[in-house]
Amino acid sequence: MNPDGATSFVDRIPDYHARLHAALERWLPAADHYPATLHEAMRYAAEGGKRLRALLIYAAGEALSVAPSMLDGAACAVELIHAYSLVHDDLPAMDDDELRRGRPSVHKAYDEATAILAGDALQALAFHVLAHDDRGPEARARLHMVDLLAEAAGSRGMCGGQAVDLAAAGRQMNLAELEAMHIHKTGALIRACLLMACQARTALDARVLDGLDRYGKCIGLAFQIQDDVLDVEGDSETLGKTGGKDQASNKPTFPALLGLSVSSQRAAELFVEAHAALAPLSDAALPLHQLADHIAQRAR
Amino acid sequence: MNPDGATSFVDRIPDYHARLHAALERWLPAADHYPATLHEAMRYAAEGGKRLRALLIYAAGEALSVAPSMLDGAACAVELIHAYSLVHDDLPAMDDDELRRGRPSVHKAYDEATAILAGDALQALAFHVLAHDDRGPEARARLHMVDLLAEAAGSRGMCGGQAVDLAAAGRQMNLAELEAMHIHKTGALIRACLLMACQARTALDARVLDGLDRYGKCIGLAFQIQDDVLDVEGDSETLGKTGGKDQASNKPTFPALLGLSVSSQRAAELFVEAHAALAPLSDAALPLHQLADHIAQRAR
Repeated sequence: MNPDGATSFVDRIPDYHARLHAALERWLPAADHYPATLHEAMRYAAEGGKRLRALLIYAAGEALSVAPSMLDGAACAVELIHAYSLVHDDLPAMDDDELRRGRPSVHKAYDEATAILAGDALQALAFHVLAHDDRGPEARARLHMVDLLAEAAGSRGMCGGQAVDLAAAGRQMNLAELEAMHIHKTGALIRACLLMACQARTALDARVLDGLDRYGKCIGLAFQIQDDVLDVEGDSETLGKTGGKDQASNKPTFPALLGLSVSSQRAAELFVEAHAALAPLSDAALPLHQLADHIAQRAR
Repeated sequence: MNPDGATSFVDRIPDYHARLHAALERWLPAADHYPATLHEAMRYAAEGGKRLRALLIYAAGEALSVAPSMLDGAACAVELIHAYSLVHDDLPAMDDDELRRGRPSVHKAYDEATAILAGDALQALAFHVLAHDDRGPEARARLHMVDLLAEAAGSRGMCGGQAVDLAAAGRQMNLAELEAMHIHKTGALIRACLLMACQARTALDARVLDGLDRYGKCIGLAFQIQDDVLDVEGDSETLGKTGGKDQASNKPTFPALLGLSVSSQRAAELFVEAHAALAPLSDAALPLHQLADHIAQRAR
């Protein structure tokens, strides 16, 4: 819950960014620790970004009255998985992108082998953090978090979506196929954020869990449609990655399939659905409503 | 313990291979499950091999009187991590090897992007198996297993060793540096096998734990020295991977540093040390003695 009833969750984002930064600092091996280049590259890969996934965890924590210290491990773990996935996605054999978060991607700043290994090690570190985080919830809850994160990151989640995405370049996809791809590629991990936060609360009402799950699904897909729209509209400077990339690589996107205006409309509908899904939490859901509005307004 | 006092652990290897095969079959998504190519590639990558790591877990299980059903998840998880590491090691940007376990490596049988993603998804699956394995030990023990495996697979273990290995091509290394590299690259995961098996036993004597840890360390390093020696002596057909590769790529190896005969001598000493480390388990250690002898005799 909003502790003083006045400020918005959005005002607390800098505090949560600082928390996450401190947690990552605690868990990432020092850049001079053997082997130094690998640890440097891991730190480089984990820097920056909007930290949307961590914010969803902390906002869900507020809504469920879970102390943020109970969720630092989960927030850290999910951002490490996200960071690794970007490193691997940018590789020449994958999306071949030289720019990420406004800087050279890891295989350009270092080399391909280091990028592959840094990604691999970031994934392992995510699970180490969840397993080793004695300040977090009790063992059974953390084991569930490991399970949720592993499932969301794996072949039936993020990696699976990326595989479909790569196989899709240059071929037609219908709307159902495109949505299925994104529900895997970005949706699964975003949904896992909400479900992981739920693990930190005991005796959770099933309707609350379902509501948060549906909120996560809607936000995940809306976020991806937005990403496609911004890729058409934005320039590389605003995006921090190469703009117009989807069209250039002939990838199926929502704007290509539905046009820009219908795509934006579809995203807007999903945000409405996300808000509606929070009904079982009634007033406690305020931080999640505020974060959804914040995401809906990004880059406008 | 050896159940009938007559057969050797070596005679039971086919049974353990069958157990592991069944467990992998249960956990790997079906090859026709969406996205099919990725799941096919994951299954291809997970096939074959000596399964040394799983055997160490089952042998430790016998020594500790832990039922093998309690260790199927751990055996599966560690073999999935090993399989993923081979897929990524073989990539053109890494060791660039076209042959693995006597067949085309994953990026040759499929393509580079699929190999990267299959490796990533196999790593995630390993942690999913440990977290989701309700037939295994209780939650706290499985969470410790996650921690041990994540630490061993990450930048302070396997990935770190591989990074040092890649950076070392063409440059001199002394014996201490070479051993440090291998203790990370292959030793950490082998050592984790023994420690993971210990998690399935409650109230374990600290001397037993230390003994198994030391056994794992010695076996891990001895195994790697053997690997270097076999790479010089063996042809590709016997090895199932490209022979003479280390020398061709100018990698530091034990034979290059010490000569073949001193290297073999060093491996033999480590096997002696491995046997000695089992003293705290007295007669119960028989399966581990037998497995160590079996490893010492491979490819002769």
